[in-house]
Amino acid sequence: MPGSTFGELFRVTNFGESHGPAIGCVIDGCPPGLALSEADIQPELDRRRPGTSRHVTQRNEPDAVEILSGVYEGLTTGTPIALLIRNTDQRSKDYGNLLDTFRPGHADYTYWRKYGHRDPRGGGRSSARLTAPMVAAGAVAKKWLHEHHGTRFVGWMGALGDTEIPFEDEAEIPRNPFFAPNAAIVPQLEAQMDALRKAGDSVGARIEVRARGVPVGLGEPLFDKLDADIAYAMMGINAVKGVEIGSGFATVREHGSEHGDELTPEGFASNHAGGVLGGISTGQELVVRIAIKPTSSIRLPRASIDRAGRPTVVETHGRHDPCVGIRATPIAEAMLALVVMDHALRLRAQCGDVRLPVPPIAGARP
Amino acid sequence: MPGSTFGELFRVTNFGESHGPAIGCVIDGCPPGLALSEADIQPELDRRRPGTSRHVTQRNEPDAVEILSGVYEGLTTGTPIALLIRNTDQRSKDYGNLLDTFRPGHADYTYWRKYGHRDPRGGGRSSARLTAPMVAAGAVAKKWLHEHHGTRFVGWMGALGDTEIPFEDEAEIPRNPFFAPNAAIVPQLEAQMDALRKAGDSVGARIEVRARGVPVGLGEPLFDKLDADIAYAMMGINAVKGVEIGSGFATVREHGSEHGDELTPEGFASNHAGGVLGGISTGQELVVRIAIKPTSSIRLPRASIDRAGRPTVVETHGRHDPCVGIRATPIAEAMLALVVMDHALRLRAQCGDVRLPVPPIAGARP
Amino acid sequence: MPGSTFGELFRVTNFGESHGPAIGCVIDGCPPGLALSEADIQPELDRRRPGTSRHVTQRNEPDAVEILSGVYEGLTTGTPIALLIRNTDQRSKDYGNLLDTFRPGHADYTYWRKYGHRDPRGGGRSSARLTAPMVAAGAVAKKWLHEHHGTRFVGWMGALGDTEIPFEDEAEIPRNPFFAPNAAIVPQLEAQMDALRKAGDSVGARIEVRARGVPVGLGEPLFDKLDADIAYAMMGINAVKGVEIGSGFATVREHGSEHGDELTPEGFASNHAGGVLGGISTGQELVVRIAIKPTSSIRLPRASIDRAGRPTVVETHGRHDPCVGIRATPIAEAMLALVVMDHALRLRAQCGDVRLPVPPIAGARP
Amino acid sequence: MPGSTFGELFRVTNFGESHGPAIGCVIDGCPPGLALSEADIQPELDRRRPGTSRHVTQRNEPDAVEILSGVYEGLTTGTPIALLIRNTDQRSKDYGNLLDTFRPGHADYTYWRKYGHRDPRGGGRSSARLTAPMVAAGAVAKKWLHEHHGTRFVGWMGALGDTEIPFEDEAEIPRNPFFAPNAAIVPQLEAQMDALRKAGDSVGARIEVRARGVPVGLGEPLFDKLDADIAYAMMGINAVKGVEIGSGFATVREHGSEHGDELTPEGFASNHAGGVLGGISTGQELVVRIAIKPTSSIRLPRASIDRAGRPTVVETHGRHDPCVGIRATPIAEAMLALVVMDHALRLRAQCGDVRLPVPPIAGARP
Repeated sequence: MPGSTFGELFRVTNFGESHGPAIGCVIDGCPPGLALSEADIQPELDRRRPGTSRHVTQRNEPDAVEILSGVYEGLTTGTPIALLIRNTDQRSKDYGNLLDTFRPGHADYTYWRKYGHRDPRGGGRSSARLTAPMVAAGAVAKKWLHEHHGTRFVGWMGALGDTEIPFEDEAEIPRNPFFAPNAAIVPQLEAQMDALRKAGDSVGARIEVRARGVPVGLGEPLFDKLDADIAYAMMGINAVKGVEIGSGFATVREHGSEHGDELTPEGFASNHAGGVLGGISTGQELVVRIAIKPTSSIRLPRASIDRAGRPTVVETHGRHDPCVGIRATPIAEAMLALVVMDHALRLRAQCGDVRLPVPPIAGARP
Repeated sequence: MPGSTFGELFRVTNFGESHGPAIGCVIDGCPPGLALSEADIQPELDRRRPGTSRHVTQRNEPDAVEILSGVYEGLTTGTPIALLIRNTDQRSKDYGNLLDTFRPGHADYTYWRKYGHRDPRGGGRSSARLTAPMVAAGAVAKKWLHEHHGTRFVGWMGALGDTEIPFEDEAEIPRNPFFAPNAAIVPQLEAQMDALRKAGDSVGARIEVRARGVPVGLGEPLFDKLDADIAYAMMGINAVKGVEIGSGFATVREHGSEHGDELTPEGFASNHAGGVLGGISTGQELVVRIAIKPTSSIRLPRASIDRAGRPTVVETHGRHDPCVGIRATPIAEAMLALVVMDHALRLRAQCGDVRLPVPPIAGARP
Repeated sequence: MPGSTFGELFRVTNFGESHGPAIGCVIDGCPPGLALSEADIQPELDRRRPGTSRHVTQRNEPDAVEILSGVYEGLTTGTPIALLIRNTDQRSKDYGNLLDTFRPGHADYTYWRKYGHRDPRGGGRSSARLTAPMVAAGAVAKKWLHEHHGTRFVGWMGALGDTEIPFEDEAEIPRNPFFAPNAAIVPQLEAQMDALRKAGDSVGARIEVRARGVPVGLGEPLFDKLDADIAYAMMGINAVKGVEIGSGFATVREHGSEHGDELTPEGFASNHAGGVLGGISTGQELVVRIAIKPTSSIRLPRASIDRAGRPTVVETHGRHDPCVGIRATPIAEAMLALVVMDHALRLRAQCGDVRLPVPPIAGARP
Repeated sequence: MPGSTFGELFRVTNFGESHGPAIGCVIDGCPPGLALSEADIQPELDRRRPGTSRHVTQRNEPDAVEILSGVYEGLTTGTPIALLIRNTDQRSKDYGNLLDTFRPGHADYTYWRKYGHRDPRGGGRSSARLTAPMVAAGAVAKKWLHEHHGTRFVGWMGALGDTEIPFEDEAEIPRNPFFAPNAAIVPQLEAQMDALRKAGDSVGARIEVRARGVPVGLGEPLFDKLDADIAYAMMGINAVKGVEIGSGFATVREHGSEHGDELTPEGFASNHAGGVLGGISTGQELVVRIAIKPTSSIRLPRASIDRAGRPTVVETHGRHDPCVGIRATPIAEAMLALVVMDHALRLRAQCGDVRLPVPPIAGARP
């Protein structure tokens, strides 16, 4: 209830603050018998790690993960898997004035009004740093799903500010710091970022994430629809302001005669639905897009107030991503993997003994 | 877990099928002492009722609600409030062929693959009819929130297919069947619908919904962020394919220097955030937009397959909304009210004794 | 959270008051494909129905159950099963003075202090009448468990006041109104009850309930241990003040050398554990005993106070069970069935693909 | 769902194994503004620490707790409080044969059948060592409850095997290793333990635990009754086989005319109910008793089988408590505190604005 636990059957409880001693999570409900070590998790953490290019925050965090429990002799035991990441690059400085001022676009004001007391260091609990444990947990989900269902997750940047990034080649995604599926556009993106940094400003981004090899039947009919849970997971990522499935907002202008995906003996003829019908997975690719707002921490001066309600001006210096969207791709993949994993277990719980009167339509899962 | 319960502290458990004996819900966790009778709920149900104009399904359902429990001498007792709506206009016909065929854009295929057995009558559990109990529950939430916090909810249609509906006058919303805040555009919308009906096709829509007078501090920091729970609630409404908060997808192109809402002693200077920062309500208006896909049930023939995987053609006759978005406004309001209500109780649970060291900034809640 | 929902994956949400329009429940998460009709449920309701002998309340309630949803063509669909029982024998009388007075041993005072407002008619929500929907839900769980695992539930009265009832013959249980497994003792029990009724007093009872054919592996290691969930379920039954598993309180005096059940190739050599080790089922018989307090509604005058704190005297007339334990056996069976059902689905969710390196020990499940 | 999280609003997620790198927990939902440091928690951990007398296991664990998050400048922030306890005294030895054999009375067999794979070192997840994080979390709950409601918790040993321990003086409890409220009986208890250790056997115990200054109104009417949640919490403690509230099993023989506690203007005249009526706290002392089975790890040889089903003999050497009940008192107190804390927040959530029409009866809370 208090909101730091994600999932129902594959549950991840997250803890920590940006500049506290440590961050981490506890995964409860992982099936037993999965081969697991830190080496399965670290590569995913490295994908979202700060300091890997000049376009992201220069905070120097190795984000080394330690498994504290739930694994014995290299296999999960079915008991909670606690993952610990020590914070190493906390800057010791006086945060007193930060505590008194509300930075525009940040959670400072809302945390203060809600709790009456907050940790202001590096954003405290509201820092995007808290996505690291989710990326770690997502790595476990990805591994299990791949071994049991052949599921794979892939994400990329679809737009950086007003630059649309045409999808060209998935193989390019890991070769540039933007997760752009397009080599030719990378110089333009770099120039765009350099200009932003120089101007002391920031910009938004759109990320697309997909899951392939998703079992049919994931999602509950009424409230825990697969797409509803995806929307919840994505909107919960820092700075996300919009979520689309399949045709998304373009569907407003579509007609029923084009939107509804026809079925053929070889499978669905199209995927406007984005892999979900009536809240339940069709077995097609899950197609998700998210809108990420520009970083709120910018060098340009902004008007604000302090805790006594007096006007003040905020200029944020220090280490910040001019586009938080750049590191969002592995996060979005991880959150999608956690949703799919949870529903895979939920499906097995309720419908583990469903036997269809006729064989499933092989082709309906292209 | 099984997905028919919404909310954590103000919990609504929904049951029923479109053509079964009854639909309804159980509200658990309603605070005691709220004056409540069927007369508080029925008007909201009447707003989303079918058969009220020629542009929506002609199914004739009075949707009369009966309170079965939880109210004594006109006041809620704090125990579960069960609401019952009998289905009266079930058509008795042979659904056998419907059971065998998968209508494009519908949940037929996914329900069959998930459960191995399904109620095909009128869409069964996947029918939008199941939003009626949520509208009823939302009426209870609205009443409590209005009495305790002065919160008000208002929604409207922002686009019907490719017709954008400029916001003119909120007073017009209840005066036309489209919930359009604009009297001048209504004839155009009517003509658009008449043409669609004649063509046997359908179209999408965009709905906007707002909450005013929302307490500051609603929402949890990490997963049950207020906007994440709103996204979950909205994406769970039948036919919704996208959700935005505040600037939404437009934020992709915004710069930090414009997006981050400045604060002044008189309050926030703008509301790009849509009333949520760091997942927690700011006290500003909540601004939510949703994309609704075109009705999948259309008269035009569509290719599909049957349960044995053989090709077939589907033409849907009978009573259907050519735009499901038309009746979506009261539903979206209700779901938003349920999210706000739940978080109002959650805030009180954890932070009921928070006393700020200085008085809250009066102006920061415009 | 608000406490009217039982279970995690096989979830039962209960509603209603003793003298309101109706009571009932919604079962969410039932696996699809189970043959189900009212005829599967009614016999269990009839076992706990009032008015069946002179030793229980003479309230005349047929307790006829109606299935409102979740079943199509005789099979469960996997969607919520709503069960409705109309109250028919509400007595119309002035409850005004009841509302003002707190009956000793009853929930009057605590409800008033908690909620500030309560339904006093027949105990309102605190009436044992609210166990009827649980008995109905338990009938569904029993049926599924029997079909899938061969599980059977049996309960009996082990003591009525200071009369110990030696276990003689299980076949006798349905043949007397006390659920006594012993024909010879029935006249003594009847005499005991007649004397109580004459004296206007009441007495406690001890009920024993067992489950046979329970799958191995049910229960979670730390908090949702099978025995912890059983204790929760049993202590939640009206008037229960104690719960034991296996040796129970006698274990205080046992030595480790006698308590720990030895294993042999043919199975466990004894069952002091009562079928649970480390919170997880062993496959042996589950053995549960509960202590039920005497009915609080008695004719003898008792001192109390009214809402203004003034002293008063309470004498309860009307229809009451002089021993609520008499009708508790089917209730305890139902609650045990609901716990086992829930855990059967939970086991499948997490460990549905566990394959042991050697075959399970056949004999270990006697 | 997977069973390592306790509570609904004050949620504790536990992780770790007896001989893994660390154990700990995450407390989510703690109200902000509570002064908290390790010094508030360590004394409670020291009360249940091993190695403090010759009568308990000689494992040498300092059980030093580290707060990883959720506290800033000495006050809780309302975000998750992660508590870490490193395991320091893991013995490196070959556990291979332990992995193959099922010790009578232990969870070896059930873990193996459920998960197919388990950590056998020191009992792994089923070790009573996992109660340490709960004692730590309980310390936080105790502090908040004491500051906000004046609540206090006290527990003691009521029986050691067949030795009944008369309650004499609460002040004696912390002065002997048995938590016995009776100085005169301590020599007898020591002799009893010495004899057991010499015989290589073990014995059960009965613990009593009380809460004073409990707010009226805690507990939900139907399923999350306060006593049901207490029963769940207590039965979840390792080795517990029975739970009683108030009169408990003695209530079987009581008459209604003696059991129902009369009310007077000065308060309840007695407390057979043990502080709970209808599942809701009366404001009286909560009275709970639990039965703890004898330690299963004994030196005496016991018959068992191995994973291939072959007969074998088990003799357990090493460091074990001959009576696990000896260290159970602080654990039972902690679990009771966690239940009360959770319900205190739940009460505030739903009924935070209840205003009684007349003042509460002062005397009814003795």
